[in-house]
Amino acid sequence: MSDRNEVITMAHGSGGRAMQQMIERMFLSAFDNPWLNEREDGARLSLADLSRQGDRLAFTTDSYVIDPIFFPGGNIGTLAVCGTANDLAVSGATPAYLSCGFILEEGLPLSDLQTIVSAMAQTAREAGIAIVTGDTKVVQRGGADKIFINTAGIGVIPTAVRWGAKMIQAGDKVIVSGTLGDHGAVILNLREQLGMDLGVGSDCAVLAPMVAPLRALSGVHALRDATRGGVNAILHEFSEASGLGICIDENALPVKPAVRGICELLGLEPLNFANEGKLVVVVSAQVEEAVLAILRQHPLGVDAATIGEVTEHPQVCLRGALGVIRQLMLPHAEPLPRIC
Amino acid sequence: MSDRNEVITMAHGSGGRAMQQMIERMFLSAFDNPWLNEREDGARLSLADLSRQGDRLAFTTDSYVIDPIFFPGGNIGTLAVCGTANDLAVSGATPAYLSCGFILEEGLPLSDLQTIVSAMAQTAREAGIAIVTGDTKVVQRGGADKIFINTAGIGVIPTAVRWGAKMIQAGDKVIVSGTLGDHGAVILNLREQLGMDLGVGSDCAVLAPMVAPLRALSGVHALRDATRGGVNAILHEFSEASGLGICIDENALPVKPAVRGICELLGLEPLNFANEGKLVVVVSAQVEEAVLAILRQHPLGVDAATIGEVTEHPQVCLRGALGVIRQLMLPHAEPLPRIC
Repeated sequence: MSDRNEVITMAHGSGGRAMQQMIERMFLSAFDNPWLNEREDGARLSLADLSRQGDRLAFTTDSYVIDPIFFPGGNIGTLAVCGTANDLAVSGATPAYLSCGFILEEGLPLSDLQTIVSAMAQTAREAGIAIVTGDTKVVQRGGADKIFINTAGIGVIPTAVRWGAKMIQAGDKVIVSGTLGDHGAVILNLREQLGMDLGVGSDCAVLAPMVAPLRALSGVHALRDATRGGVNAILHEFSEASGLGICIDENALPVKPAVRGICELLGLEPLNFANEGKLVVVVSAQVEEAVLAILRQHPLGVDAATIGEVTEHPQVCLRGALGVIRQLMLPHAEPLPRIC
Repeated sequence: MSDRNEVITMAHGSGGRAMQQMIERMFLSAFDNPWLNEREDGARLSLADLSRQGDRLAFTTDSYVIDPIFFPGGNIGTLAVCGTANDLAVSGATPAYLSCGFILEEGLPLSDLQTIVSAMAQTAREAGIAIVTGDTKVVQRGGADKIFINTAGIGVIPTAVRWGAKMIQAGDKVIVSGTLGDHGAVILNLREQLGMDLGVGSDCAVLAPMVAPLRALSGVHALRDATRGGVNAILHEFSEASGLGICIDENALPVKPAVRGICELLGLEPLNFANEGKLVVVVSAQVEEAVLAILRQHPLGVDAATIGEVTEHPQVCLRGALGVIRQLMLPHAEPLPRIC
């Protein structure tokens, strides 16, 4: 499968021998685990094993259509594993199992697919997640753009963990786990061929190890990972679900200088930029310092900072550098399509 | 959302207001259920509820890229619900929860999406399946072909049910639940504009109600639904996984005259044609008649028939109309891409 000239053909999606061979040589060998090796059309997972870890299953899905498929800090495959694993982690779950559906464009180099699959396997392995079932479809040239990946994930939420936007209370603190907009800036720089030397890659990472110790604290109310739509989209989701407001302090936002530069150049707002490895955490004021300490202990959380607080008035606001407060609207559309 | 001139724009996939509004007005109202209405980025499912129904979770996924997206007997949405629900059912599980990931092409009429989403909602409701979490991405015109849908499914397998290709034994009977190749013939007729009056629609249907009573029988060894690759692909999967052979009797194959006609016209083989509502069941000879009786009691199983048996020699064979036995190969590729 490593011949550099080999490409995906319609036969690879046909249900015939060509597809069977690709599944065996590429997917089964990379994702190797007992569930997948059963070779049934679906995985069978022990409910006793799952129930030992908690009382609720978290179940989530995302499709990944990012363009370009390779970027500094990762590729569409690492994104497909990290993104769904992170959605599980922020619900309080330990990510356990992923499904994986590939839609491939005829003509995709097999070597590109191999690179993506290997990255998925490595990311999943490092995070202790098993890719247990999958599917491959091929569409004719021009019917899709290179490769789209869907992952759905299952994890278990420990009984004591009750996180959710509805738990948020006025006076809570809003914390982010690091610098904002790294992923968005990297993709924008590539896509628009700005040619800037950002000195930064996508922040694409599995957040579960950083989230896990937060589950032992009472006073943690809600978590989200701020991907498409940026931190701003999360703030609006939290505000709407809780019926409360959030006021953010512009001076407190951690933003890398290079990302700030690209935003100022183009008149864009890092709060709207996508991240792929950043938490937004809403906690009671009593545990604010404890949460910051836990986050900062982890390599992915060294820049963790409190950026604002929850207010009674149901509106998302930004206190600007000069102290002027303005309402922060959710844009009709994000500036950058196919960011994830 | 029902203005006939409205179409999907890049804003619908951006994570901004346009996407939130589409999710609320179209998906939340159609798929309405308590898990989805939580509005978290993922569903939370009670492990106690799941554990009451059995000891194993079945977890499976498929992406759907069928062309055309509307066809006699269904559309890409009905297919996306039926196909994944059926993969759960043939593992012995009661289908319970689905995730749903949409990849939409800019310019897709919103009315088409509404038709598809309504069909998904109705199919899921009829089958007692809840669509509990989802995702929407939009790619620019030409970056995808109208709409692709991924569904991942969760169901519970009752403790007593131990179906799997490895349970197959020599001497077992091979049963199909009805006529072969209806879906493939319908799509081929449409796609190649053959203009034949087949008098038949796709067989796209949820099979779980027909499968459920089989779970009470001992002697049922393995089930699959014969989709892409047709019954032939399933026979090869069974043969490979069990290390045994299967010999099929050509005279015993239930095929509708119109489907046989299209196959003879084009020199194709109904055994290789896709189905979307047909079971292949391998059972011990002792329960063959009981299984046929159960299948035939269900409207989807009136044409159920034994088509062959499992042999010691690890090869898939076809006994022709004149009694001559030949090896049945798995084709390198199916004749019809994007069949599901």
